[in-house]
Amino acid sequence: MFKDFRAEGESPAYIQLKAYIETLITQGVMPLHHKLPSTRELSGLLGVSRTTVISAYEALERTGWIEAIKGRGNFVSRAAVHLNEPPSMIEWTERLGPQAFLSEEMDLMKHGIKWEKGMIAFTSIAPDERLFDMSGVKRAFLDRMALEGDVLLNYGYAQGYRPLMRYLMSYMKGKGVETTGKDILITNGFTEGFDLLLTAIGKRSGRILCENPTHQTAIKIMKLHGFEPVGVRMERDGVNMDELKRTLDEGGFDLAYLTPSYHNPTGIVTSPEKRMELLRLLGEHEIPVVEDGFNEELRYSGAHAAPLIACAGTGNSVAYVGSFSKILFPGIRVGWIVADRKLIGYLESLKRARTIHTSTLDQALLFQYLHNGNFERYLKRARTEYKRKYESAVRGCAAHIPMKSMSGEGGLHVFVELDERLDARVILEDCRKLGVVFTPGDIFFTDGGGQHTLRIGFSRVPEERIEEGLRIIGTVVKEHVKALNHRIDV
Amino acid sequence: MFKDFRAEGESPAYIQLKAYIETLITQGVMPLHHKLPSTRELSGLLGVSRTTVISAYEALERTGWIEAIKGRGNFVSRAAVHLNEPPSMIEWTERLGPQAFLSEEMDLMKHGIKWEKGMIAFTSIAPDERLFDMSGVKRAFLDRMALEGDVLLNYGYAQGYRPLMRYLMSYMKGKGVETTGKDILITNGFTEGFDLLLTAIGKRSGRILCENPTHQTAIKIMKLHGFEPVGVRMERDGVNMDELKRTLDEGGFDLAYLTPSYHNPTGIVTSPEKRMELLRLLGEHEIPVVEDGFNEELRYSGAHAAPLIACAGTGNSVAYVGSFSKILFPGIRVGWIVADRKLIGYLESLKRARTIHTSTLDQALLFQYLHNGNFERYLKRARTEYKRKYESAVRGCAAHIPMKSMSGEGGLHVFVELDERLDARVILEDCRKLGVVFTPGDIFFTDGGGQHTLRIGFSRVPEERIEEGLRIIGTVVKEHVKALNHRIDV
Repeated sequence: MFKDFRAEGESPAYIQLKAYIETLITQGVMPLHHKLPSTRELSGLLGVSRTTVISAYEALERTGWIEAIKGRGNFVSRAAVHLNEPPSMIEWTERLGPQAFLSEEMDLMKHGIKWEKGMIAFTSIAPDERLFDMSGVKRAFLDRMALEGDVLLNYGYAQGYRPLMRYLMSYMKGKGVETTGKDILITNGFTEGFDLLLTAIGKRSGRILCENPTHQTAIKIMKLHGFEPVGVRMERDGVNMDELKRTLDEGGFDLAYLTPSYHNPTGIVTSPEKRMELLRLLGEHEIPVVEDGFNEELRYSGAHAAPLIACAGTGNSVAYVGSFSKILFPGIRVGWIVADRKLIGYLESLKRARTIHTSTLDQALLFQYLHNGNFERYLKRARTEYKRKYESAVRGCAAHIPMKSMSGEGGLHVFVELDERLDARVILEDCRKLGVVFTPGDIFFTDGGGQHTLRIGFSRVPEERIEEGLRIIGTVVKEHVKALNHRIDV
Repeated sequence: MFKDFRAEGESPAYIQLKAYIETLITQGVMPLHHKLPSTRELSGLLGVSRTTVISAYEALERTGWIEAIKGRGNFVSRAAVHLNEPPSMIEWTERLGPQAFLSEEMDLMKHGIKWEKGMIAFTSIAPDERLFDMSGVKRAFLDRMALEGDVLLNYGYAQGYRPLMRYLMSYMKGKGVETTGKDILITNGFTEGFDLLLTAIGKRSGRILCENPTHQTAIKIMKLHGFEPVGVRMERDGVNMDELKRTLDEGGFDLAYLTPSYHNPTGIVTSPEKRMELLRLLGEHEIPVVEDGFNEELRYSGAHAAPLIACAGTGNSVAYVGSFSKILFPGIRVGWIVADRKLIGYLESLKRARTIHTSTLDQALLFQYLHNGNFERYLKRARTEYKRKYESAVRGCAAHIPMKSMSGEGGLHVFVELDERLDARVILEDCRKLGVVFTPGDIFFTDGGGQHTLRIGFSRVPEERIEEGLRIIGTVVKEHVKALNHRIDV
C-alpha cells in the first residue's frame, strides 16, 4: 500500500494523492473504519510534504471519504463499492432504434475519406487556423469577463445572449432583411439550426425540395428526420428553372432547402433574377424556405446578391440559418436562425428541451470579438490568403485536370465535373497511393448521381502544395481517360 | 442623406459608418452606380475624421458594396434589394408538427412561476454566482489558449475534447466505476445527454420506469420522445421496493431512469442496500438503466453511496449521465455520459448529426479549471456557504411550516410535503401577494399527484432572507390549514 504512489505532471500533488487514496478505498484495500496513517507518517512514507498530506486528508474529509476523529486519527468512512453479482450485461445493439443506426451509417467521420499526415488533403473546407486571431479572441474574452463574468457562467436564455442577438439582427438588417415581425434564435451552429427546423416542421408529404448536389450534412439531417430530399439540378447561376417547375408540379413539398450563396459543394451563386423567380414560384406553391446563409463574406469577385430572406421583403416564408463557422471559429459552435417571430417561439422551446441554450461564454466571446471590430480586420487578412489559394486552385484545375466543367465563385472549395464515364472514387484510390485525397462528389447528390464529380477544398492545404496536388490528380485523371478511350478504340 | 448619422458607443466609428452606408444602399437611397462623396467631403459633412471615412470605404469595397475607380471616385456596386411582391406570408402554426407544440406546452420558462425583483424566490436550484471563481476561470482560459488556442477554435471531435474525457474517466474511476469496456461522450449538459439516450433507445413498450416524483426536465424529454414515464413512489431511502416489484411485474419497460443521489426534487439519497437491490431486480428484468449523477459533491452529512454504475461492477447495463452544472458553471453547458463502449459509439454519431460537438472552448476551460485544482478549492467555499443556507432552510421549514414530512440530505433544495388536502398552487398565489414564491411540487410527479408538495430552492436566496421567506410561507399554510379544519368542524 502507498508504495506505488507517484505525484507527476501539473495537477497539484494533494489532488493526486486524494485520488490515489480514493482508489484504495473503493477497491477495498482500506476497508470501512480502517485507520489511515498520520499525516507525518504518510509524508515520510511517500516522500511528499506534510502539507500535501494534510490537504489531501482535508479534501477527503470534505467529500466524505474519511472522518477525522479528534485525538484519535483519520478513519475510512466509506465502504468499498458493493458489487452487483453476477454483473448485468446488455446487448445494446438489440435495444437501439432506427435513428441510432441511421446516424451511425451516415456518419462520414466514421465512414469517410481516410488520409495520413503528409498527404495533400483537399477534403476540408474548415478554416486555416494560422489565420486565427488569437490576441483578438483573448482580448474579447477578458473584456467580456471583466464586464459580466458571473452572468456568463450562469444559466442563460434559450433564445440567446441578448447583445449577440441584437448585433446579429443589425447585421441581417445590413443585408437588407426586413426584421419587423421576425426574431432570432442562437443555435449550436448550422447543424443544430437545421435540425431544430426539421424537428418543428410537420411531416405532410415528407418531401423536401433542394438543390442537387447539396450540403451532405443537410442530406443526412433530412434523412434522419424521415424526409426525402428531392433535388433539382444546378447550373451556372442557380437551379435549372424548367426542372424546378416540373418538380414543383409533381406536388407535395413540406419545405425547400436552398443555399443561394457560395453553394456547398458547387460554389455557385444564384443570380438575383433567379432568386426572385424562386421566391415567386415557391410562394405560389406556398412552400416555406430554409435558406442556408453560407458565407457571403467569402466572395472573391462579382457582385453580391441579397439573401433570399431579404428579397422576401415583409414576407415571412423564409427562415435563414446563418453561421460564422466557415470563416471564423467553428470550434465555438454558434449559429443563428432569423425567421417569423411565431416560428422562432416554437424553435426556442424545442431548443430549451434539447440543449437548454448555446454556451453563453461562446456567444459573449463572439459578440465582443465582432463588436471590437475584429471581424473586418480578420476578413481582410483571410480573404487575401484564401483568394490566393482559390486562384491557385482554379489555375491548377484548369491547367492539369481534363474536366467537363468547374464551378466556384467564392468560399473555400471548387467543384469539378469530369467526363461522365469516370468514377471519382476509383480515381481517389489511385490519388491516395500518390499522397493526394479529395472529397468525391457523390456524397452531395440526392439521386445517387455525381460519381464523376469532385470537391476540391483548399482552405487547409498549404499554398505551395496546391498546384502539386492538382497536378497529381490531373495525372491520374488523364490515365483514366486514356484507359476509357483505349477501351472504346478496341 | 448622411445628416442623421451618429457614431455612438464602443464599436469602432468606421464600422458604424459602414453599416450606415450599407443601409442607405439596400434601401435604394443610394442606387446602383451612384457616386459617393469623396472621403474629404464626407468627413467634413459628418464631422468624423477622414481616416474613419477612408476605413469605412475600404471595408465597403472589400465586401463588395462599392467599387473604387482610380481617378474617378467610389461608386455603389450593389443594387437595392429586389423585393418579392406581393410578399409571401405563411401561417407557420399550420406547418408545424406535434414536437413543436408539445415542447412549447411543456416549456416551463414560458408557463412557469412568474416573480418580480425583490421577491423572495425559492424557485431556483441554480448556483449562486457570487461564489463563482472568476480569477480561476480567467487563468484557466488563458493557460489553455496559450497552449493550444488555435486547436480550440477549430472544429473538434464529436466524442469530446481528449484531455477532458481523460480527466472525467479518471474522476469516474475515483467513484469506483469499472471503466473497462466503457467509454465517454461529452454532451451539452444533462439535457442533451438524456435527449440523445432517448433518441437512441428503440421504442418497444414505450414505457420508462422512474421515481415519482422526479426531475421535471426528464419528464418533459421522455414525453417529447413519446415515452410514458411510469413512476414508483419514493420513501426516505429510495423507491418503495414493494411498489417497484409490482410495477416491474406489470412488465414492459424500455429503460429505467433513476437519480440515486440528491434526487431532484426530494433530495433523497438511495441507500447502498437499495442500490444493490435495484440493480438486481432491474437486471433480472433485463431493463437498462440511465443514472442521473446529480451532484454527489453537495453532500452535507451522512456517508457517500457509490453511483449505480460503480455498483454494477463489470456489468454494462447502466449509462451514467453527469454534469457539473449544479455546482460549477451551468452557462458553459458541459456534461457527459459514461456507458458501454458500443452504445457510446452510436450516441457519438447521433451527437455529430445534431450539434457536431460541444464547444471545445468550454470543454478546455473546464478541463484546465479542474486540472489546476480549482474544483476542490471552489467546493470547499461553496459547500460552506450552501450548508449554511441548507441549515437555515431546514430550520425554517421545521419551525414555521406545518408539514407532513420534509426531505433533502444535500443539494440546493429541500422538499416539503404538506397535509394532503392542501393545494400548493393556491398557497403559492397567496404567498406571491406577500412577496414569496416557490416551486409547486406537482410538476415533478408522473401521475398527476403531488399537489400538496413544494420544492424550496435556496441556492440563490440571500441567507438573511431564507427564514423570513419560510415564515411567510408558514403563515399562509397555517391559514389554509385553519380554513380546512374550520370546514370540517362546521
